[in-house]
Amino acid sequence: MSDVIGGVNPVLEALKARGGSVEKIFLASGRSGSALRKILEPARRAGVKVERVDRKRLDQIFGNPNHQGVVALAGTFKYSTVDEVLGGVKGESALILILDGIQDPMNLGSLLRSAESAGAAGVILPRDRAAPVTSTVLKASAGAAEYIPVVQVTNLVRTIERLRKAGFWIFGAQQNAEDSLFETDLRLKLGLVIGGEGKGIRRLVKEACDTLVSIPLKGQVASLNASVSGAIAMFEYVRQSGRHRNRP
Amino acid sequence: MSDVIGGVNPVLEALKARGGSVEKIFLASGRSGSALRKILEPARRAGVKVERVDRKRLDQIFGNPNHQGVVALAGTFKYSTVDEVLGGVKGESALILILDGIQDPMNLGSLLRSAESAGAAGVILPRDRAAPVTSTVLKASAGAAEYIPVVQVTNLVRTIERLRKAGFWIFGAQQNAEDSLFETDLRLKLGLVIGGEGKGIRRLVKEACDTLVSIPLKGQVASLNASVSGAIAMFEYVRQSGRHRNRP
Repeated sequence: MSDVIGGVNPVLEALKARGGSVEKIFLASGRSGSALRKILEPARRAGVKVERVDRKRLDQIFGNPNHQGVVALAGTFKYSTVDEVLGGVKGESALILILDGIQDPMNLGSLLRSAESAGAAGVILPRDRAAPVTSTVLKASAGAAEYIPVVQVTNLVRTIERLRKAGFWIFGAQQNAEDSLFETDLRLKLGLVIGGEGKGIRRLVKEACDTLVSIPLKGQVASLNASVSGAIAMFEYVRQSGRHRNRP
Repeated sequence: MSDVIGGVNPVLEALKARGGSVEKIFLASGRSGSALRKILEPARRAGVKVERVDRKRLDQIFGNPNHQGVVALAGTFKYSTVDEVLGGVKGESALILILDGIQDPMNLGSLLRSAESAGAAGVILPRDRAAPVTSTVLKASAGAAEYIPVVQVTNLVRTIERLRKAGFWIFGAQQNAEDSLFETDLRLKLGLVIGGEGKGIRRLVKEACDTLVSIPLKGQVASLNASVSGAIAMFEYVRQSGRHRNRP
């Protein structure tokens, strides 16, 4: 699931080239000085956890002692492209899940799992301020992430425009939106936008949506987890699509 | 959220009296001998985590040094009764969530949150082989657990019979069940049974259900997290109940 990268410069390169896909950095506990600073600052910027471990443990992780006291674990998840996702779309109705800033790897894994189970053609994530597909995400997806194309894009709004040109309607799930999900016709090519935990869908992304729909809530606390909202909306699409039989 | 209990006998009493509500036990790292064994065995039986910490840390947790090297954290969540839940049921349609052995506190918290948001009258849990409402669960429920009655019962089958006598229909969610959730009329007093992670609904509980329904799955992996299945089924009840407007 993970590449193991050792040495100051290789780890720096990995941090630059793969950004969020570096999952964790281990530093030998004795390590200090300029090499340490060289790693710590880019790691902090990339939001990568740094753990101090003793050199013996580092040798185990890397498999040999030639790591200069620095080892990184980097995900090797193979992202797809928007073209690949659109290439898999057939017929009049299809579902693409668009996640605007899901930060929690457990939520992302759960959403990938639900999307795969709902027969979605793909999942689109922004590259910045969002959890990438790490080994934690793969695990939380119960293997589903291996079966559904996941795309990392730089500009979500531009990707939404592209999907729209490919015939997709973009519906954003937003608490308190006037239109109920359950009273909205979803039997079309649907790009479903789910916002990040707490913050919801960002303004520019919201403006790029064709419409906003809400899940009717009945309680006092009345808020749903992002992964739960996504699942409810995706399975409402499944329900309306009318293919209600399980595969034989 | 938690009671802090110190001393060998008080902790033993808490383990006996409150079973699953003891969340964690801290033992002074120097501690050993018969007092230790006295605690470890009942803790193991109750499935309570035991952590060794140094005595200074134990003094901090307990607030003073009079703990004999043993401190327990016990939840103070106030469970409701089946009578209280049934007392809150008005009208022709209602929802009670019945969880048959959810083990993961995060899943339980998520289910309580979704149940509260779906306007469920209550949630029923078995006392054995299921996560109790701990502070982790309360946190994962985003506060919803404070607003929805949760009942712990000794015999789930007997409770199901009791709900049936009160006019409830008991529907179990089961992968591959012939009837689709989406083609089942849920506009009634609904007791919805969700099985534990991995294992699903136990045989005797399944036999106590009026019918089993499945969520149609479209993917290759085709399995949903227990908390997601529960949310989809509960919001299908909300959808069918036709009260689709958000509260003003």
